Amino acid sequence: MPQIRTVASAIILAGATTLASAWDALPNKAPAPANNPTTAAKIELGRSLFHDPRLSSTGTVSCASCHNTMAGGEDNRPNSMGVHGQTGGRSAPTVWNSAFSKVQFWDGRAASLEAQAAGPVTNPIEMGMKSWGDVVIRLEAIEGYRTAFKEAFPDEAISEDTATKAIAAYERTLITPNSAYDKYAKGNKSALTAQEVRGLKKMAEIGCLSCHSGAAFNGNGAFREFPTIFNSYLEKQYQFSNDKGLFEVTNKQEDAHFFKIPTLRNIALTAPYFHNGSVKTLEKAVKVMATVQLGKKLSKSEVEDIVAFLNALTGEFPEQVLPSLPATPGNTFN
Amino acid sequence: MPQIRTVASAIILAGATTLASAWDALPNKAPAPANNPTTAAKIELGRSLFHDPRLSSTGTVSCASCHNTMAGGEDNRPNSMGVHGQTGGRSAPTVWNSAFSKVQFWDGRAASLEAQAAGPVTNPIEMGMKSWGDVVIRLEAIEGYRTAFKEAFPDEAISEDTATKAIAAYERTLITPNSAYDKYAKGNKSALTAQEVRGLKKMAEIGCLSCHSGAAFNGNGAFREFPTIFNSYLEKQYQFSNDKGLFEVTNKQEDAHFFKIPTLRNIALTAPYFHNGSVKTLEKAVKVMATVQLGKKLSKSEVEDIVAFLNALTGEFPEQVLPSLPATPGNTFN
Repeated sequence: MPQIRTVASAIILAGATTLASAWDALPNKAPAPANNPTTAAKIELGRSLFHDPRLSSTGTVSCASCHNTMAGGEDNRPNSMGVHGQTGGRSAPTVWNSAFSKVQFWDGRAASLEAQAAGPVTNPIEMGMKSWGDVVIRLEAIEGYRTAFKEAFPDEAISEDTATKAIAAYERTLITPNSAYDKYAKGNKSALTAQEVRGLKKMAEIGCLSCHSGAAFNGNGAFREFPTIFNSYLEKQYQFSNDKGLFEVTNKQEDAHFFKIPTLRNIALTAPYFHNGSVKTLEKAVKVMATVQLGKKLSKSEVEDIVAFLNALTGEFPEQVLPSLPATPGNTFN
Repeated sequence: MPQIRTVASAIILAGATTLASAWDALPNKAPAPANNPTTAAKIELGRSLFHDPRLSSTGTVSCASCHNTMAGGEDNRPNSMGVHGQTGGRSAPTVWNSAFSKVQFWDGRAASLEAQAAGPVTNPIEMGMKSWGDVVIRLEAIEGYRTAFKEAFPDEAISEDTATKAIAAYERTLITPNSAYDKYAKGNKSALTAQEVRGLKKMAEIGCLSCHSGAAFNGNGAFREFPTIFNSYLEKQYQFSNDKGLFEVTNKQEDAHFFKIPTLRNIALTAPYFHNGSVKTLEKAVKVMATVQLGKKLSKSEVEDIVAFLNALTGEFPEQVLPSLPATPGNTFN
């Protein structure tokens, strides 16, 4: 995957220069790719598909099961639980504001939301479908989906391509604006407390924002080695290095332990932390990051200031209508 | 449980006389018990609790996981799948219109929605919480729930009692009015097709409605022996008699194979059928019921007519807002 590697290298080099953009407020709309312009029909279809457990082999797991749109966009578990109670090795990233990252999955192996959406459905320990061909057969059997696909994609068939485009179009609406930070960034200087401002300044000072840059505090799809500083005590406790990140996909030594930089938006709601969900609290996560990425030891009050600021990144979650899923008379799962 | 037995016996005897009430349209509101009057604050709290997977040990299973409010109020599975992928022996009944039954669960062991709501949460193969005490500790730790309980129950603490009252208050709003049948019952005689009317008349004629009586076509909480006519061929195929129904709770021989009469509302959406979910299609379910309950063999066209009418019992599902679940910063499930 040379193009991913190129992106990673380029943005890692550029990291230090993108600091200024960290002061941007979150946009109210996410950009859509040229081959999948957002439409109301796609959003509605995608909303149904995203919440529909019939996209899993057992009929029990939907995208929303692990990326809970009623909460912080994930499941507050170290590792998500897929069909038949199986668990994988990584923690579910939040779906909120995921549209503001150029790459998806912890290892960044998907170059778009569309590509990401295709993965879990046929992962044997996540949604467990044998193939997208089987998913398409199921969707084609549901009259309401035949109609909804026709409206969203008048000239195209029901397929992996159209289904994932609809899901991605819906995900692009999952934006949480108007955090205290956003109000501050837009000019309301009383929107953040003195402690929160101290936390933000400390983060800039010690280097957090050189990676967690941009409006989503995620480097907009950049990669970073993690951990960069080996700490045997923390390694023993959290086993960060067992997972080799991008290397697991590319098998290239230079990709070992490279991960997508995760967003800090709504981070207070998405415990536990890190790719393996091994750290339970935000306080601990801040201390660990300072140690293994920046080589800094923070005082108790510095940690508290940073955590206060991170809490100011919790946005407003738009009210959502529960989709009314199209019925399948006579449908049974085993 | 003598009081349940009394109810069962009384309504079984009264069954034949309640036929007239089968022509009632579904009410728009469900009655609430004197000790739990419905309020807006209880409904909103109950909506959150009903959809919150934090009421399960793993943080992955909510009431809505098996009683899907985006669909027919159940999960289209023979047996529901609880925590760690475990399955039980019965098929999830629909939550829609459950307020119109005086008893709950397939064996009718719960005398109210409140009593029913308490069960799955601590069932080891459903939601798997060790005790309601543990649930209360979890809820008390969530600031948003502390506020919501205070609004819904100003003078009471967070408890099994108040939590299940809120869930029941929400469930009483889950009503699907305005089916084709309801329009017909209210006087619009063109709301049903000729075939649907034939199906309804056939059901009255052969005796279906003597049990499936009342506006919800459920005998309003009556019990009935199932099957009443032993058929070795069907028994071998569907193993209906393995489950002894109310007997499993009371251990009284006279309760053996007694079950709550399930609603026929939205029955077209809730395959597979019967207490053990062993019958996949509505056509087959109609034939089986005629055979093992009424001793009738229906022609192909009679089955088609009845199925057509049963489809006319699919109501309008009210639009629902997805609850925004109160956050638990630093919360982790294992």
